[in-house]
Amino acid sequence: MRTSQTLIPTLREDPGEAETVSHRLMLRAGMIRKVAAGIYTYLPLGLRVLRKIEAIVREEMNRAGAQEVLMPIASPAELWKETGRWDFYGKELFRFKDRHERDFCLGPTHEEVITDLIRREVRSYRQLPLNCYQIQTKFRDEIRPRFGLMRGREFIMKDAYSFDRDEAGARTSYQKMYDAYSRIFTRCGLTFRAVEADTGLIGGTSSHEFMVLADTGEETIVYAEGGTYAANVERAEVAPPAAASSATPLPLRKVQTPGARSVEEVTAFLKVRPAQLVKTLLYQTPGDLVAVLVRGDHEVNEVKVKKLLGVTALELADPAKAAAVTGAPVGFAGPIGLKLRILADQAVKALRNVVVGANEANAHYMDANWERDFTVEQFADLRNAQAGDPSPKGDGTLRIARGIEVGHVFMLGTKYSQAMGAMFLDPEGKECQAVMGCYGIGVSRVAAAAIEQHHDAKGIHWPAPIAPFHVHLLPLSQSAAVSATVQTLYERLSQAGIEVLWDDRDERAGVKFNDADLIGAPYQLVIGEKGLAQGTIELKERKTGTVKKLAPDDVASRAREHLGLS
Amino acid sequence: MRTSQTLIPTLREDPGEAETVSHRLMLRAGMIRKVAAGIYTYLPLGLRVLRKIEAIVREEMNRAGAQEVLMPIASPAELWKETGRWDFYGKELFRFKDRHERDFCLGPTHEEVITDLIRREVRSYRQLPLNCYQIQTKFRDEIRPRFGLMRGREFIMKDAYSFDRDEAGARTSYQKMYDAYSRIFTRCGLTFRAVEADTGLIGGTSSHEFMVLADTGEETIVYAEGGTYAANVERAEVAPPAAASSATPLPLRKVQTPGARSVEEVTAFLKVRPAQLVKTLLYQTPGDLVAVLVRGDHEVNEVKVKKLLGVTALELADPAKAAAVTGAPVGFAGPIGLKLRILADQAVKALRNVVVGANEANAHYMDANWERDFTVEQFADLRNAQAGDPSPKGDGTLRIARGIEVGHVFMLGTKYSQAMGAMFLDPEGKECQAVMGCYGIGVSRVAAAAIEQHHDAKGIHWPAPIAPFHVHLLPLSQSAAVSATVQTLYERLSQAGIEVLWDDRDERAGVKFNDADLIGAPYQLVIGEKGLAQGTIELKERKTGTVKKLAPDDVASRAREHLGLS
Repeated sequence: MRTSQTLIPTLREDPGEAETVSHRLMLRAGMIRKVAAGIYTYLPLGLRVLRKIEAIVREEMNRAGAQEVLMPIASPAELWKETGRWDFYGKELFRFKDRHERDFCLGPTHEEVITDLIRREVRSYRQLPLNCYQIQTKFRDEIRPRFGLMRGREFIMKDAYSFDRDEAGARTSYQKMYDAYSRIFTRCGLTFRAVEADTGLIGGTSSHEFMVLADTGEETIVYAEGGTYAANVERAEVAPPAAASSATPLPLRKVQTPGARSVEEVTAFLKVRPAQLVKTLLYQTPGDLVAVLVRGDHEVNEVKVKKLLGVTALELADPAKAAAVTGAPVGFAGPIGLKLRILADQAVKALRNVVVGANEANAHYMDANWERDFTVEQFADLRNAQAGDPSPKGDGTLRIARGIEVGHVFMLGTKYSQAMGAMFLDPEGKECQAVMGCYGIGVSRVAAAAIEQHHDAKGIHWPAPIAPFHVHLLPLSQSAAVSATVQTLYERLSQAGIEVLWDDRDERAGVKFNDADLIGAPYQLVIGEKGLAQGTIELKERKTGTVKKLAPDDVASRAREHLGLS
Repeated sequence: MRTSQTLIPTLREDPGEAETVSHRLMLRAGMIRKVAAGIYTYLPLGLRVLRKIEAIVREEMNRAGAQEVLMPIASPAELWKETGRWDFYGKELFRFKDRHERDFCLGPTHEEVITDLIRREVRSYRQLPLNCYQIQTKFRDEIRPRFGLMRGREFIMKDAYSFDRDEAGARTSYQKMYDAYSRIFTRCGLTFRAVEADTGLIGGTSSHEFMVLADTGEETIVYAEGGTYAANVERAEVAPPAAASSATPLPLRKVQTPGARSVEEVTAFLKVRPAQLVKTLLYQTPGDLVAVLVRGDHEVNEVKVKKLLGVTALELADPAKAAAVTGAPVGFAGPIGLKLRILADQAVKALRNVVVGANEANAHYMDANWERDFTVEQFADLRNAQAGDPSPKGDGTLRIARGIEVGHVFMLGTKYSQAMGAMFLDPEGKECQAVMGCYGIGVSRVAAAAIEQHHDAKGIHWPAPIAPFHVHLLPLSQSAAVSATVQTLYERLSQAGIEVLWDDRDERAGVKFNDADLIGAPYQLVIGEKGLAQGTIELKERKTGTVKKLAPDDVASRAREHLGLS
């Protein structure tokens, strides 16, 4: 493809709107443009990357025995009401009415639609197992769309749904998808890790997320160094504390802590370790406020608190409301005398003589002890795992990494087939519920994640399998000799199945080099007068900058070798 | 692909919901299923047909120099307000609000979004011409979604938008698309005709529709037999009448026509030809009622009336309102004494001594003459062309055919670039408006139209280039000999690039034959014990039923020949 005939509006400056590397580079390389918050147009280069990813996904899904279908984007409310998700999904669901005032949503996921199809079309165990997938535009009204394609409101997903006769079959289907996902992300040239994950709005019995490892990732994952355990921090279990403190309880005493609110401020002022302080956090549930206690050096895991309480919504209490309940400004809340349900992380149970807020401005208690000074309704694992914790599977010590979620596989069990009556007849003629799994890949997010993992100061260096082009052809002059060679090379490379972007613009060499480094084709072919006079052209690897001088006749075969196409 | 592992829920009976051949056959062949009115899921076979059509469209668009992009489905209201179409589009636009109460629509077309992109990215004449296309899900809230994929509310379209420096360039771009469309529909195996068309909600200066010819088509087209003129009847011009009648005006007289309302009833009762009667139709405009007069054997063309009046909405007046204005029930309206604006088709001007309604129940006037008995504000071409009319281009006599609109190309001029300020600098540094064209193909409708044109009593017979599979492999028994041959054939055909659907179900031969005829792969390969004993298998052409006996070793090469793949 010729640059002069393709819309590739590269930018020299970093656009103000960009918050992450991938967002910035996709804008600068002329791959995407914003239409509204979290809603983008894919320009030719961006779309080519998506199509490459889609093709890999499609091949591996077909290979795993899944069959491609295409469900509608507009999803009737009735189906979502059957499962309760019309209400449960909240504001993330884009909703609209048709001209007859019938309710619809823009599908963020398709469990309801596929289950409706299967309950109508599948009658017998002979028709199972069945796995249907689609590659489709999805919608989610994110409260804060950001990071370009990373957290968009309109995005492209591959979603698959498996239906099995029983749990054992469902586990086999799940494993096939798990394996297919591993192949897909490997083929896309990504370094990734599958981790145990929370099931969130989808539900089900268990799940794994596929995380592209990148320092810029929004997700925190923990993994056992030298072991096999790995989980999203939302989900990672924490082993109970080894033993309770054997210290003798000391008398409770109130101390003044003027202006000291944060754990750092209070422990510095009182000269105690953060692990000797117990934080009191007040949460708003759909009902009352609840207090959650964790050690000063720990963080509350809200997913775990939600699960313990059996609620779907939870957020830190409004400061004014918290102050009204505790009688003190934020930073001085404590469990002593507090008239709320109090939950505590299991680590708190092992402590003696701790510092807690006094429910009074500028004051804390020291040497507080649970049972004697305050009551805890329930101790449980309520904190985030952190580096240095023992692995809950006993296979070493936990470490922390950052990741970008690009895939998620769920064992759904019968949640949807039960709610919607997706039944089949077993060999004995008995009605059974299909056992389901569902499996998603964020296709557009994979493109962004690949950039987060594959870039440098000059721009992107795409893994070859998902690069918009294999080779960027860079003639350094418009002379007859150069032009003739370039024309020949372009034809030969194209015939050899190599995708070439030909920079045929009448621009300075510097401009061409900068754009080529920005756009990030894995190889650049530089054709100049000087080299040609010596019978050579330069093949430069974008990632390493390594340059090889080649005879024009050898270029096509050598390029295929380098690209792994031979 | 094996039938047993693919969701192909064929139906023996005609489904009640189906109104047309293609709708019925797509449901029966297990290609689509309805999710809501005008909203469908594509099952594996249906999706394969779409993908084939998309691939042909993509190849021809790329060959014509268009570049693929992907714009969002969610389209912000601000852009549509700039062109006035936020109001103008009316109820066909699906509208919704995001969580911040910002207005969006689901794009039925993308002139606004692409023009917004181009005004931001294109600055210089050097960047033009430019033609961007996408293949995407579109939405239109049809008042009466029907006929399956033919008139859906969510459907798949290819839309392209060209931007040129001037009118001459725009005409070249238009012609390229016109030619690409001709190649696309030819390659899809369709019999079609390009006709002059009205520009409707898109606007612009001129347009052509590509019509697949089929008796079941919703559109009426007229064409000059032996000539080149062809147009949608909405748009087709009518030549003025050759000469006015030279008859002497007779005295006006009122006659009783008890119960005779329709043209047939009145002319039969009064023993005059329909061409001697003038119909008076009352239309509701956004303002007042208007009366339109046409000859008894002619039909009013509402598109022409709308254009003459400069209004976008027009419908037959409510009978009660019409009766209130005329003082007579429907069927007896006439121009004499009528207190309304009166427009008349040009053919009325040539008549003398006509029959008109008397604005009185059961009465008509005979020998009415315009000017003497009633006043006409304006005569114009206001009727539909009909068979036997002379071609307006003078190239013969018009004939009528039915068609299905599958493509539409528009010369837009500067309608959108002017409204949205899509300007570029010409070589002299002067700001100019880009001259646009837009070009649509209803991808999902092409699939339905192909069936309307390619079916018989047993089912579909797909043109090979868009068939879901090339060959349907039909083993008649599960014996070891048959199974071994089928397995070998399946592998050989697949390796030869032939797409095979293998009916591996344990079903009776009749069931398999019926399903194969219904699904409509262009060729069926029948493998039975008897034939095998004689060293032959049968290759049946679905469309003609022609059967050839072949040696198994010859099947792959012969099939490729027949499919035109060799």
